[in-house]
Amino acid sequence: MKLYDSKLAPNPRRVRMFMAEKGVTCETVPVDIIKGENLDAAFLAVNPRGLVPTLVLDDGTVLDESVAICRYLEEIHPEPPLLGTDAVSKAQVEARQRHMEFDGLLAAAEAFRNSFPGFKHRGLTGNAGPIDAIPALVERGKASVSRFYAKLDADLANSRFVAGDTFSIADITALCSVDFATGAARVAVPDECANIKRWHGEVAARPSAAA
Amino acid sequence: MKLYDSKLAPNPRRVRMFMAEKGVTCETVPVDIIKGENLDAAFLAVNPRGLVPTLVLDDGTVLDESVAICRYLEEIHPEPPLLGTDAVSKAQVEARQRHMEFDGLLAAAEAFRNSFPGFKHRGLTGNAGPIDAIPALVERGKASVSRFYAKLDADLANSRFVAGDTFSIADITALCSVDFATGAARVAVPDECANIKRWHGEVAARPSAAA
Repeated sequence: MKLYDSKLAPNPRRVRMFMAEKGVTCETVPVDIIKGENLDAAFLAVNPRGLVPTLVLDDGTVLDESVAICRYLEEIHPEPPLLGTDAVSKAQVEARQRHMEFDGLLAAAEAFRNSFPGFKHRGLTGNAGPIDAIPALVERGKASVSRFYAKLDADLANSRFVAGDTFSIADITALCSVDFATGAARVAVPDECANIKRWHGEVAARPSAAA
Repeated sequence: MKLYDSKLAPNPRRVRMFMAEKGVTCETVPVDIIKGENLDAAFLAVNPRGLVPTLVLDDGTVLDESVAICRYLEEIHPEPPLLGTDAVSKAQVEARQRHMEFDGLLAAAEAFRNSFPGFKHRGLTGNAGPIDAIPALVERGKASVSRFYAKLDADLANSRFVAGDTFSIADITALCSVDFATGAARVAVPDECANIKRWHGEVAARPSAAA
């Protein structure tokens, strides 16, 4: 299989980290999204939505979405389980991974995308056509990131990992979201968020975090 | 178990329809989100994020997120399968359900939320605090809905349902998204989208669509 990838974007990192936790490797094809290679005809022929990551299986099947790729990998490489192990834990991991995505990653993306000069006319991801950035979304996104940090810090006071005592995809999404929020969206984790800092230290030290 | 519900919002409808397809019933508690009951202390004690649907299991476990609730129901009531049946179909259903959500439902919500007078200071869902609506998002959201329709129509030229030949959660999310986009966001499905109309006619006629 073959992974269309970008080292700059958080969603491909989620998949790389998931694969590394599973011990799975594959060929990767870099796509330069800053230059807009994801909108070139060659890539749109693979994924018409113009988004990375995209995984192409050996039989040509295209999986064009981050969490869908992780679900496929969980099915074919069940160990270690990263999506829960029984009805309740699968649901709670799903809920927590989606909290991280909607409250953290989308907020950081809103702040970044509407302030980055290279995306001035690429206000939405992927193959949406020219769309102006909306400056008011920068502050809204940053404020959402701050709320995300406060809530995550409170939650991590009660558990080692984002979805309880076990490392899961929710931690992967959270790490990629926090790192994207601090880097691209430029909202530092406040010093008082000691629980995030404890958790981040542990999760960022996993070998998969460097994938 | 007990479902905190709203008849006005698309996310609780997704769960009601999923439950109806499974033949599962449970007690429901209506939450008036227009009045802001989802932000009252009583509901925030159940779900601090202030969002419906929320499912409380008999042992008190709280599942506070739409797709997480569906995943739980799929695990305890596997028939009929609505989340795929093997590694590839599970991944493709996940991908298509997420396309419907990100491209359709979020776009319609952007158009609705920033134009509805009652949400003038509730620009984000749930317990985010007072946030002004951003008028520029109304047109952006409507344009995204139009792109969503065009893409969905093209995809449905090649398949009976959203994720292939089998009804799945992707159809549920798509139906709730299209109905919310045409109703609340006021973007009609164009007459030329004959594939959407054929598909909508079939899916809206399922008994679960009235749940």
